[in-house]
Amino acid sequence: ADPAVIASARAHQDRLTKPRGALGVLEDVAVRLAGAAGHNPAPIPAPAALAIFAGDHGVHAQGVSPWPQEVTTQMVGNFLAGGAVANAFAAQVGASVTVVDVGVAADLLEGPGLFIHKVAYGTADLSRGSAMTAAQAVAALEVGITTARRLVDGGARCLITGDMGIANTTPSAALICAFTGATPESATGRGTGIDDETHRRKIEVVRNALAANGLSDGLAGVDASGDAGAMPGMEWLNGEAAAGLRVLAAVGGLEHAAIAGFILGGAAARVPVILDGVIAGSAALAAAALAPAAVDHCVAGHRSAEPGHRIALDRLGLRPLVDLELRLGEGTGGLLAHPLVCSAVRVMHEVATFDAAGVTEKEA
Amino acid sequence: ADPAVIASARAHQDRLTKPRGALGVLEDVAVRLAGAAGHNPAPIPAPAALAIFAGDHGVHAQGVSPWPQEVTTQMVGNFLAGGAVANAFAAQVGASVTVVDVGVAADLLEGPGLFIHKVAYGTADLSRGSAMTAAQAVAALEVGITTARRLVDGGARCLITGDMGIANTTPSAALICAFTGATPESATGRGTGIDDETHRRKIEVVRNALAANGLSDGLAGVDASGDAGAMPGMEWLNGEAAAGLRVLAAVGGLEHAAIAGFILGGAAARVPVILDGVIAGSAALAAAALAPAAVDHCVAGHRSAEPGHRIALDRLGLRPLVDLELRLGEGTGGLLAHPLVCSAVRVMHEVATFDAAGVTEKEA
Repeated sequence: ADPAVIASARAHQDRLTKPRGALGVLEDVAVRLAGAAGHNPAPIPAPAALAIFAGDHGVHAQGVSPWPQEVTTQMVGNFLAGGAVANAFAAQVGASVTVVDVGVAADLLEGPGLFIHKVAYGTADLSRGSAMTAAQAVAALEVGITTARRLVDGGARCLITGDMGIANTTPSAALICAFTGATPESATGRGTGIDDETHRRKIEVVRNALAANGLSDGLAGVDASGDAGAMPGMEWLNGEAAAGLRVLAAVGGLEHAAIAGFILGGAAARVPVILDGVIAGSAALAAAALAPAAVDHCVAGHRSAEPGHRIALDRLGLRPLVDLELRLGEGTGGLLAHPLVCSAVRVMHEVATFDAAGVTEKEA
Repeated sequence: ADPAVIASARAHQDRLTKPRGALGVLEDVAVRLAGAAGHNPAPIPAPAALAIFAGDHGVHAQGVSPWPQEVTTQMVGNFLAGGAVANAFAAQVGASVTVVDVGVAADLLEGPGLFIHKVAYGTADLSRGSAMTAAQAVAALEVGITTARRLVDGGARCLITGDMGIANTTPSAALICAFTGATPESATGRGTGIDDETHRRKIEVVRNALAANGLSDGLAGVDASGDAGAMPGMEWLNGEAAAGLRVLAAVGGLEHAAIAGFILGGAAARVPVILDGVIAGSAALAAAALAPAAVDHCVAGHRSAEPGHRIALDRLGLRPLVDLELRLGEGTGGLLAHPLVCSAVRVMHEVATFDAAGVTEKEA
């Protein structure tokens, strides 16, 4: 972010016909996005494009979700038919919906609204070893980067992250533990709704995943000179980035890796990326490890009911705009936030200054 | 609200392709509005119409605001020129903006976007006696009712409350104290931004206003058989309603009374009313005293930074949708909430059921 642009955006905002600071958190959003765009005001972030990255998870076999794995595929069909909540919310805000198969455990047919970039038929079980190879994680990152570029080339001026993957709050919790040092107890939630017994099992699975991948002490246990650093073409990765990739491969999901790439692609295109819930929050931790400046382009759309999400957002330094106890994923929380982000930026384009409007300022 | 419709709306929502409860607070919004509309799903609440009720306040002479009183008139000009934050936010959500002069202390000219229904050139100083006569309060209520009807007749399917009136957080605090029994210290905030000394003075002014109007013990001190009950044509008012009108006249503002009427008018037309901040929250307490069922049609758009607003919303039993430390008024918080309300209702219209979409439900 450009500090001169940030200063000028803040000064501009203080001349507008409203008490200083009266727009609360939205003032920070407008100023941050100006800094990220490199000019004030930032472009109005519309139209928006939602990308729903779909993948399956070997860890589903551990009984961490009450939903059958086939629901991932069934919900892809529902998105394409326009019948999911994400479709309704996207229609409300005028966002396009693109589904990306980055790792569904079934063969899907490419068609309107569906890109097939399958890296694998789901991940391996992270509670027993690495969920992905480093090569798979990199391939999934590239799917995200490519998707971002494709949507921006198609006219999108705001990207919204979405996900579909039964059991994917388990790798999210593991990623958050690994990147922040949080305990499995504090970071593992009830996802779309599980009972106490399943919740206890899920915490144990997260703990096992960290242990199986040498991440029980978080990043401290990562040998960054390992497979990521040694990958052909990846020698440029520095220690933190290599460790981030290693963690992502070890305990992430294919959709998490793709979302991390989507964030990197949005940042590279200088387009704001609205993060959805805990899947995106955990993926953003990976993106931040790979390229810290990418976070400047991110807006936290909402805070989900998942406890790990708060931990991730705190680490990222992002304040969520919507906080309504949603726990659905798909990009629904990001979509809800889109008009708020647009409103924040619109103020900088459209609101009159005290001088221009002939409005008297308050007495000092 | 119709309990059978509420039950059927909730059952419908549980069949949609999402985990039960996964839309958090938005599920309640959709169900409540179905109950208020009398059928499920409720109509999608669009287009929206914002009415900004403008009035001045005799209590401004007590030094409760750093802004000159003329700013009320100047901001009306800014709204009509399209230069205020409310205009930018309204453009974002496709809402119309209507300004209603219910009590500005200057002569304004009716024109496009401005209705003149001036009841008085501002209120009297509530810290020294009644801010309005009961007749003035009733006239201002009628302005709000008329405005609601006019906007609904013009095609609005959602009403959003707005206000403009320098010093109007002072009568809001007094209304909240009188209706809820809160103390002036707990209910009086810093409005658009005042220093410690002005804040102390403002608390004292609220305390004096309650004392001067026999409201130091809240509604307990109100003689409901007094002037409101005795007003020609108002004999139908029952004890609680008469007391509510008496409080509104004593310590309210003309825009508060108009907003209370606007809520009643929206409820009568079975159109949702999105409440903005603390001005609307305090006015809604008056509307609830006059007709408790009107609250069924209200959605709390946001929670402002004013401490009294939380008290008012708790009493009304409304949970705010946006909570971003806004403290501007004008309807800005209500406008931000409009797409969230639409999204909540859209789900009931557009999302597929598990059966229809062929999606497997979770295991019991």
